[in-house]
Amino acid sequence: MAQALLRRGCEVTVLDNLSSGKIEHIQELLSHPHFHFVEGDLLDQDIVSRCAEGKEMVCHMAANPDVKFTAGDATDKDLRQNTLATYNVLEAMRLHGVRRLAFASTSAIYGVSEVQPIPENVAPRPISLYGATKLGCEALISAFSNLFEMQCWIFRFANVVGAKVRKKGRTVISDFIHRLREDPRRLTILGNGRQAKSYLLASECIDAMLYVVEHAREPLNIYNLGCNDSLPVTRIADMVAKAMGLSRVEYSYTGGEGGWPGDVPRFRLDVTALNRLGWKARHNSEQAVAIAIGEMLQGAEAGQTAGGGAICRP
Amino acid sequence: MAQALLRRGCEVTVLDNLSSGKIEHIQELLSHPHFHFVEGDLLDQDIVSRCAEGKEMVCHMAANPDVKFTAGDATDKDLRQNTLATYNVLEAMRLHGVRRLAFASTSAIYGVSEVQPIPENVAPRPISLYGATKLGCEALISAFSNLFEMQCWIFRFANVVGAKVRKKGRTVISDFIHRLREDPRRLTILGNGRQAKSYLLASECIDAMLYVVEHAREPLNIYNLGCNDSLPVTRIADMVAKAMGLSRVEYSYTGGEGGWPGDVPRFRLDVTALNRLGWKARHNSEQAVAIAIGEMLQGAEAGQTAGGGAICRP
Repeated sequence: MAQALLRRGCEVTVLDNLSSGKIEHIQELLSHPHFHFVEGDLLDQDIVSRCAEGKEMVCHMAANPDVKFTAGDATDKDLRQNTLATYNVLEAMRLHGVRRLAFASTSAIYGVSEVQPIPENVAPRPISLYGATKLGCEALISAFSNLFEMQCWIFRFANVVGAKVRKKGRTVISDFIHRLREDPRRLTILGNGRQAKSYLLASECIDAMLYVVEHAREPLNIYNLGCNDSLPVTRIADMVAKAMGLSRVEYSYTGGEGGWPGDVPRFRLDVTALNRLGWKARHNSEQAVAIAIGEMLQGAEAGQTAGGGAICRP
Repeated sequence: MAQALLRRGCEVTVLDNLSSGKIEHIQELLSHPHFHFVEGDLLDQDIVSRCAEGKEMVCHMAANPDVKFTAGDATDKDLRQNTLATYNVLEAMRLHGVRRLAFASTSAIYGVSEVQPIPENVAPRPISLYGATKLGCEALISAFSNLFEMQCWIFRFANVVGAKVRKKGRTVISDFIHRLREDPRRLTILGNGRQAKSYLLASECIDAMLYVVEHAREPLNIYNLGCNDSLPVTRIADMVAKAMGLSRVEYSYTGGEGGWPGDVPRFRLDVTALNRLGWKARHNSEQAVAIAIGEMLQGAEAGQTAGGGAICRP
C-alpha cells in the first residue's frame, strides 16, 4: 500500500509496531524522500495522535493478524489490537481534523452465513474473536463517520495471499509449504479438508482498495473485496505439493467442519457492488493461490510482480 | 428484573455502580434472604469475576444509559462502559463456567434503516457511539457464544419508559415534565418534532426478556423487543401537557431531522419473531408512553403496577 501511494505521488507515513510486518518489506522505501516510517503501537494514543497530525487521509490496516483462537490465548488480544487500536485511530483523526479513512475489515465478520455468496447487507454473526472485534471496529467507524463527518471506506477482505505473508502457520499456503519441507511424504490437514474460502492476491487487494476510495462517494462505503468463487483446502494441498514437485503425499485430516474453533468452514463473497463500481479481480481464487504459491516458493516479492493492472473500467 | 427473578424463586446478586441506577429502586429487596447487592463497577475485572463465580446465568443490563453525544464528551465513554464492560462480563463467565447470558442491547445499533419496521436480520449501521459500542458487545457475545459454548439472548430494545427512568434529560418524557414544571407556557422540542420512535414499558420489557429466555432455544438468540408502531415527539409533548393539566403550551423547535447528533429520527421495530415465539406487548407505544407519563407524575413505581400479565400464549 505504501508503495502504491508513493507511486501516486503521495507523502506517506507508515506507523507499525513490526509485530507481524517486517522492515524488509519496506526496505527500499526507507530512502524515498516522501516516505516516513514510525515504529510504534496503535495502543499508544500519543504516537497515533502525532502521526495523524496534518494528514489528509488514514489507511488503517493494522490488526492482530491471527484469526485462530487457541486455548490459553488471552481473550482480549483481538479486542485490544482491533477495536481499541481502531478507536485510537479514529480519535486521533477527530482531534486533528483528518476526515478520510480506509479500513481493512474482514469477511470473518459474517460468520456462518446462510446466504452464499455473501453480500455486504447480510446481518453479521461473527464466530471468532477476530471477526467480532473487527465488527466492533466497523461499528465505531460507522458512528464516527456520522458524528464527525468523516468519509470512510470499509473493506471486507477475502483471504489475502501473497509472498509477504510467510510466517509459519499464518496462512494455509505457508503452513503447507513449511510442513511439506519438514516431511514431504505426509501432510496433516486441519478439519475435513472440505473447507472452501475465497482468496485474493495482496497486490490486487491494494488495487481494489485504492480504486474504491477513488470511486465510491458515500460518507460510509462498505465493500467486499475478492471474487465470488471459493477454493477447497485439499485442492490447495494438491497445488502446493505439485508446485514443490511432490507426488503421492499422504493426507490425514484432523476432522470436523472447520479447521479450528472460530473458523468459518465455507464462504464465498458477493462482489457485485465492487464489480458494478468498475473493479474486477484479474485472478480467481485458484489463480490467486497458484501465484502466491509460486511467489512463496521463489521468495519473490508479491505486490511488485502480480498486480498493477487489475483496475478495469467497464 | 431482580424482583421478577426473586418471584420466580431465583437467588439474585445485583452488581451495580449506582452511576445511574438508584439504591431506592431496590430498597425493599435488600432484606430479601435470596437477594445480594454488590456495589461495584464492571470495569473492575476482579469484582465482576467474584460476582460470576458459582452463578448459573448472567443478565447483563449495565451500560452508559445516555445515547446522546454532546461536544466535549469523552468519545471513549461508551466504548468503555458498553464494549469493555461486556467483555469483562463474558470473560468472567468463561473463567467460571457460567454458560447463559441475557444481554440488553438496543435498536440504536440499526442506525437509519431503509427497511421499516426493522427486522433483526438487517445489516446494522449505527450512527451513535452508543449504538456502535452496543453492536461491539453483540459481536463479542456472538463469538464467545460460539467459542465457549454459551447460550445467549440478545435483546434490541425499543425506547424503554417507566417511572424509574426519571433523571432530567434522560428520556423525552422526564425532560418534558421537568421543563414544563419550570415554564408551563413554553416548551422547546429538539429537532423538528417529527421524530417518531417505538416505546415499551420497562415492566413489559422485563416480561419479554424472561419469556424469550425461557422459550428461545438457539445457542444465540437475537430479538427486537417492543411493538411495531411508533409515536411522534410532538404527540408526546401534547400528552405530557394534557396530563399536567396545561393548555396552549407554545412549542418551539430546534430544527433538523434528529434531536441531536447520533439520533435516529424515525424507526419502528419488526417484532414478528417475538410475536411468533408467543409474546406480544400488551400496550402499544402511545399507551406505554401514557402510562409512563402517569407514573412519573404520580411518582409511582413502574414495574409493579403495569406489567405481569403481558405474556400471552397464542
